[in-house]
Amino acid sequence: MNQPTPSDFALDPRIAANTHFVAALRLCDVLLMNDSRFPWLILVPRINDAVEITHLSEEQKTDLWNEVDQASRALLGQTHCDKLNVGALGNIVRQLHVHVIARFTGDAAWPGPVWGAGTAIPYSEDDTAQFLQTFRTNL
Amino acid sequence: MNQPTPSDFALDPRIAANTHFVAALRLCDVLLMNDSRFPWLILVPRINDAVEITHLSEEQKTDLWNEVDQASRALLGQTHCDKLNVGALGNIVRQLHVHVIARFTGDAAWPGPVWGAGTAIPYSEDDTAQFLQTFRTNL
Repeated sequence: MNQPTPSDFALDPRIAANTHFVAALRLCDVLLMNDSRFPWLILVPRINDAVEITHLSEEQKTDLWNEVDQASRALLGQTHCDKLNVGALGNIVRQLHVHVIARFTGDAAWPGPVWGAGTAIPYSEDDTAQFLQTFRTNL
Repeated sequence: MNQPTPSDFALDPRIAANTHFVAALRLCDVLLMNDSRFPWLILVPRINDAVEITHLSEEQKTDLWNEVDQASRALLGQTHCDKLNVGALGNIVRQLHVHVIARFTGDAAWPGPVWGAGTAIPYSEDDTAQFLQTFRTNL
């Protein structure tokens, strides 16, 4: 069963503007970054005012890492990527969120990090629908 | 008690060359990146051939995130930083390692990620000794 969501919880508008909704897990909303250069998920715990992972309760931390693991395995299974990148930065958007990104040798930012690298190339509607359908089945 | 370390476990030489040893926790060695621009820890599970976090057993994953949490809280307490950055990338060094970095508004890479940003400025011997002494007390 999902954790109760604060009635006034709201996704940061900068995250909302650049992602598609994928699924609600027990603690986190899973989102797909609208950048077809990298299969890139963002997990956002539905907790008001959380900024650092250290702010979470023990139970919430356990849920967070279990859900990062679940998303990681689904992304690995779907993309057969060369490397996963997992990161919680929050230097620009402070609302706590964890990135899970499938990286390929020679992708648009390889071997550097994706954050701040070039300009996003949005998915087509068809590609979004296809990614979401496959990913939700794997999740 | 610490997890048994494989007798042939060896830190990747690129990590070893750029860090100071801080402490051995149950699963991970904690290292200090020798870059005085950022208070920057690296946690390396003492497990041969681990590349992705998904490769770890449930017990190892629990240990890893507990130790990242422990290192994060010690680093927050010592530095009073504006933001923690936590990341597992491994695009260049594949041996599994997790970065925990204290970030400050206006630091040398702010608000971008530290990976690939500019050139490291090594600590002086005195500054290394002072950081390690304080950090080991906090850990």
